Amino acid sequence: MSSFTRSAGRAADQLRAIRITRGFTIHAEGSVLIEFGQTRVLCTASVEEKVPPHKKGSGEGWVTAEYGMLPRATHTRGSREAAKGKQSGRTQEIQRLIGRSMRAVFDLRALGERTIHLDCDVLQADGGTRTAAITGAFVAAQDAVNKLMAQGLLGASPIKDHVAAVSVGIVEGLPLLDLEYTEDSACDTDMNVVMTGAGHFVEVQGTAEGAAFTREEMNQLLALAEKGIGELVVAQREALAQA
Amino acid sequence: MSSFTRSAGRAADQLRAIRITRGFTIHAEGSVLIEFGQTRVLCTASVEEKVPPHKKGSGEGWVTAEYGMLPRATHTRGSREAAKGKQSGRTQEIQRLIGRSMRAVFDLRALGERTIHLDCDVLQADGGTRTAAITGAFVAAQDAVNKLMAQGLLGASPIKDHVAAVSVGIVEGLPLLDLEYTEDSACDTDMNVVMTGAGHFVEVQGTAEGAAFTREEMNQLLALAEKGIGELVVAQREALAQA
Amino acid sequence: MSSFTRSAGRAADQLRAIRITRGFTIHAEGSVLIEFGQTRVLCTASVEEKVPPHKKGSGEGWVTAEYGMLPRATHTRGSREAAKGKQSGRTQEIQRLIGRSMRAVFDLRALGERTIHLDCDVLQADGGTRTAAITGAFVAAQDAVNKLMAQGLLGASPIKDHVAAVSVGIVEGLPLLDLEYTEDSACDTDMNVVMTGAGHFVEVQGTAEGAAFTREEMNQLLALAEKGIGELVVAQREALAQA
Amino acid sequence: MSSFTRSAGRAADQLRAIRITRGFTIHAEGSVLIEFGQTRVLCTASVEEKVPPHKKGSGEGWVTAEYGMLPRATHTRGSREAAKGKQSGRTQEIQRLIGRSMRAVFDLRALGERTIHLDCDVLQADGGTRTAAITGAFVAAQDAVNKLMAQGLLGASPIKDHVAAVSVGIVEGLPLLDLEYTEDSACDTDMNVVMTGAGHFVEVQGTAEGAAFTREEMNQLLALAEKGIGELVVAQREALAQA
Amino acid sequence: MSSFTRSAGRAADQLRAIRITRGFTIHAEGSVLIEFGQTRVLCTASVEEKVPPHKKGSGEGWVTAEYGMLPRATHTRGSREAAKGKQSGRTQEIQRLIGRSMRAVFDLRALGERTIHLDCDVLQADGGTRTAAITGAFVAAQDAVNKLMAQGLLGASPIKDHVAAVSVGIVEGLPLLDLEYTEDSACDTDMNVVMTGAGHFVEVQGTAEGAAFTREEMNQLLALAEKGIGELVVAQREALAQA
Amino acid sequence: MSSFTRSAGRAADQLRAIRITRGFTIHAEGSVLIEFGQTRVLCTASVEEKVPPHKKGSGEGWVTAEYGMLPRATHTRGSREAAKGKQSGRTQEIQRLIGRSMRAVFDLRALGERTIHLDCDVLQADGGTRTAAITGAFVAAQDAVNKLMAQGLLGASPIKDHVAAVSVGIVEGLPLLDLEYTEDSACDTDMNVVMTGAGHFVEVQGTAEGAAFTREEMNQLLALAEKGIGELVVAQREALAQA
Repeated sequence: MSSFTRSAGRAADQLRAIRITRGFTIHAEGSVLIEFGQTRVLCTASVEEKVPPHKKGSGEGWVTAEYGMLPRATHTRGSREAAKGKQSGRTQEIQRLIGRSMRAVFDLRALGERTIHLDCDVLQADGGTRTAAITGAFVAAQDAVNKLMAQGLLGASPIKDHVAAVSVGIVEGLPLLDLEYTEDSACDTDMNVVMTGAGHFVEVQGTAEGAAFTREEMNQLLALAEKGIGELVVAQREALAQA
Repeated sequence: MSSFTRSAGRAADQLRAIRITRGFTIHAEGSVLIEFGQTRVLCTASVEEKVPPHKKGSGEGWVTAEYGMLPRATHTRGSREAAKGKQSGRTQEIQRLIGRSMRAVFDLRALGERTIHLDCDVLQADGGTRTAAITGAFVAAQDAVNKLMAQGLLGASPIKDHVAAVSVGIVEGLPLLDLEYTEDSACDTDMNVVMTGAGHFVEVQGTAEGAAFTREEMNQLLALAEKGIGELVVAQREALAQA
Repeated sequence: MSSFTRSAGRAADQLRAIRITRGFTIHAEGSVLIEFGQTRVLCTASVEEKVPPHKKGSGEGWVTAEYGMLPRATHTRGSREAAKGKQSGRTQEIQRLIGRSMRAVFDLRALGERTIHLDCDVLQADGGTRTAAITGAFVAAQDAVNKLMAQGLLGASPIKDHVAAVSVGIVEGLPLLDLEYTEDSACDTDMNVVMTGAGHFVEVQGTAEGAAFTREEMNQLLALAEKGIGELVVAQREALAQA
Repeated sequence: MSSFTRSAGRAADQLRAIRITRGFTIHAEGSVLIEFGQTRVLCTASVEEKVPPHKKGSGEGWVTAEYGMLPRATHTRGSREAAKGKQSGRTQEIQRLIGRSMRAVFDLRALGERTIHLDCDVLQADGGTRTAAITGAFVAAQDAVNKLMAQGLLGASPIKDHVAAVSVGIVEGLPLLDLEYTEDSACDTDMNVVMTGAGHFVEVQGTAEGAAFTREEMNQLLALAEKGIGELVVAQREALAQA
Repeated sequence: MSSFTRSAGRAADQLRAIRITRGFTIHAEGSVLIEFGQTRVLCTASVEEKVPPHKKGSGEGWVTAEYGMLPRATHTRGSREAAKGKQSGRTQEIQRLIGRSMRAVFDLRALGERTIHLDCDVLQADGGTRTAAITGAFVAAQDAVNKLMAQGLLGASPIKDHVAAVSVGIVEGLPLLDLEYTEDSACDTDMNVVMTGAGHFVEVQGTAEGAAFTREEMNQLLALAEKGIGELVVAQREALAQA
Repeated sequence: MSSFTRSAGRAADQLRAIRITRGFTIHAEGSVLIEFGQTRVLCTASVEEKVPPHKKGSGEGWVTAEYGMLPRATHTRGSREAAKGKQSGRTQEIQRLIGRSMRAVFDLRALGERTIHLDCDVLQADGGTRTAAITGAFVAAQDAVNKLMAQGLLGASPIKDHVAAVSVGIVEGLPLLDLEYTEDSACDTDMNVVMTGAGHFVEVQGTAEGAAFTREEMNQLLALAEKGIGELVVAQREALAQA
């Protein structure tokens, strides 16, 4: 058995403190600060009344995401991607993942020919920024959709279900839910799981950072993720229930 | 006489509500959220124990700044500079201005061969982002220097004086202090002024957006700026006096 | 039950014809043309007697991959990434996946301070280019390692196990192994699985393109992948057994 | 009192020899070589019968500028911006300044939906290249407008007033007009001033390179600039009076 | 007299073994693998039913080429141009040459408003890649035109004549036809010659790598090139005569 | 026989008026304005006391060239390459040609480990800018070498011979020397020839813009080029003979 102990006495299958603050900034149609413990991501939803070229004239809308990290969101300062003149492979991979996850619960035809841009900017990083981003972006998107409905621009909601995400991993042989940075650095296997409110999988991305993992370990990790995402969906509902 | 009225009954020579929150994020050596009314800029100071090539072996340190704006900090979403692959001329102009302003109050020899990076990221924009950035970056830089001194890495402070900045402008003939976005868009003349705690000028950048301005108008604007910067320096001192 | 029929009477759990041609080009330390049916990828391994900056002086080597697709490898011509001046997010995602997969079976310390570059260039695409690339790159890497051992530059092999990959997916409700392009375009769920010769997981990347997938479906897909990868490892062994 | 002596016995409030050569090249609608002593800038005005996107359909024209420096315009060779693949922050700052200065004296509605491009290329640099560029670009723009009027494409001139620029600075305590390179390198305060023929300010950009400057010093510098720009406007008029 | 001996007993005026394989890949309208000895270039022709901006509405079509080299086509691995983010000057020079050579034998009006893209990708390099590319691209273009005619999209062929290319050079005083890599590296003069089936010149690009060359030497080289290109045109005809 | 008449009664085998002005700018080690009729190119030579990486420690120097064209050097304004962020293929082709031509007459070992940068910037274009650039760059390089010898940094000249260049072409069947822009646009064949003072070829680049050209036409063009380059070398000698 592993002797690994989590910080602040957290249980292996316990999420960090989750906080979802709606209306964090004033201009965006949806603006959510989501916190998974010390990880803080600002997710804004912006509605644009046009679609990218591949959707023009299709009668369908588009939902897309961009991801960024402030240079000093991390322990040591990273270089600014705008100054370097290009986004890293990691950044592109994450923003593609967020976009796909959001589109999985959107009926693009019901959205009509408009685009929802989800900007996920990490103000402070402590592991799990991409899963926090997905979980927060959903709430921002819901706020933007609610605004469109309140304005009469949409008759019915194009959102079919909730979507949320969490990381799971194996550290010193112990399967853990919602890894923080020190756990993430030490883990053998790291898996990001995205699920719907109905409990189905949208994305499963598991990577063996150290030793390859077994089918049994995978099952343990998926069970942890199901538990965590269930709780995140509850947190989303509670946040959206507030005025 | 002008019939222009400021929002919230603000007087022509009155700053917006100024708030300076130190320790806004946990990783940086200095981390300050500064608010000029609805304008909110996160300023972090990062210490790096090396210098850029032009200072190598000089015995002197360097202080430099980068500036960014989150895509939805503004009324309509702007494109992400990292995704476009280059910083705009405006961004570069602003970050050069912040860097020069900071260096004006630093004794680079006393800093030793290390670099202080000041990252100024606009979370929400309502006019005056560059002047808020300068005013907040100074506080972040002071916190970083204090940390270096507490660690014994610096014997004496390389900071010679405060530096702060404010915008002034003429709207419908009326000279105004600390323009918010709607005023900035309507003004004929827009001037950004950077001054030291001793009341001397570091930068004066005045631009006639509409009609060219007279020497008399310039004098009125400079007087307003002196008043505002005096108050900003007091706000910096009060913020730094807290634990 | 699904009425979907695969081309050429292929069974749902059947790989396409796999061909592995070693020594396809003459200059590289390892050069393999791998074919999964009509998908053809040229994988070359190049040994460089130095390491990237993050490994300098570490006593460890590095294994990395780049991926490309000839403009007319596909049904309609794609634009050349070198001419556009940047690699797409998809390209970067794939080459990061190939690199991680190779490193999972390499003992970097046993490799010594040298780099193996794996270039995977798609000559013809018909679905599954990334899984073919991983499967072929392993053979090229093995050839390069054998050459280093024959030259006395390496005493023992730094390769700990085989690694191979295959795609699986659900088309019209039917779980299928090794999707070709028309199947890939039509599938609801698409999963790329990378496993070792010992049958452990290195990467699992499942994406719901249409409806989200259930735990049961995931289990079916993983079982198919295990079967396919077992056969691919046999094909790798047979290819390597030839002179 | 300062013991600083200017080269060639120039007085503190004296411009360098100013030469304005119209028709320096044959293709452009306006082509001016302007010399401030050894500083030589080629300013061309090109008329294009269309406007950038933000002016399309507005009934207004546009006036814009680009600035460049030949690699060996300076004492030591600088790298070519076209070869580096990007313009420096300094270049962008200068070309934005030239553009704003020109637009300050243009009635864009009277110009109609066409663009005047002002290209300012420094053939030889000895301080003051941006102020020479503004002063010369005005003459080139006037020539281009005259050509449009002669062709009947414009009924009345869209140019409302002259615009010219000069640098001023404080070297060893002495306020100086029109700094040459060695003075510019040694100065504590450097200010670029752009004014109209009517004597009003278009831009004031003052920077403390060494010690911060006082209100009194600023007044001295502005007085010098007013004198110098008055003389430059006379030089523009004389040049334009020639056939 | 020179004592230089060619590999494999090749005569000074002898081409390497030429192989032209049509239909090398399945998607392109024309797909040719051409081999000049160990040099192997994949040439594909793609038909696009639109033209670049400068031909829009002209009634004329366009023929253009792109050139690339796989990173390990050469003895030592070259860096991937897509990863570096730009094509080298050499690459651009070669693809411009291929494009001009193809257009020299095309009647662009007879082609109609469509584009033929010729992609020439070097799988293996041993000298003469650009001349092999031109020779192979012609065959791919012919196949694409034949397909357009078979589809009834073109009534008559827009191809007016064959075009082929070969390199010639002087090594240790000896004029040689069709240089391979070791000869190319050692030569004093290197010349690439492009000719039509009728025996006229399309391009002559001769460069003195060592000593400048005389008129007499030039005449010898041109005679060799004429002989070689005559044989290449025969090889093209034979390849095209096959089903 | 052709009825084509050249402007200003120029004979078919006559150069335009050639003017070579040394010392055109003050900072460069060599600075030459060369004029071929209305074509005006500023060629500067800059000496740098280091070499590029591929020559480090070789005991040899390097000679390299860059080429640029001011945006309004031509009839209609071209876009600025620095603003576009890349040099065109044409620009790169020309600067590679100038560099090779210069190196053909330099003994790089005798130059020692230093670099001569030749910057060729077209102030005004009327055909033949690359040939004027080569001819002028030689004079600038000679001035820079003379300065190195006068300073005692070089004992003997590393320049082995003159090098100069001219364009020739066939317009309406008539072979012409030194094409101006209108001739260049109308020609069927365009050839740039670079030769040494001894009358040997350094580069021959002939392109059929219209009909392919015959061996006989090529001979006529080379004869014209020999005549023209002979006269250009005389002009170089005369310019260098002046104080």
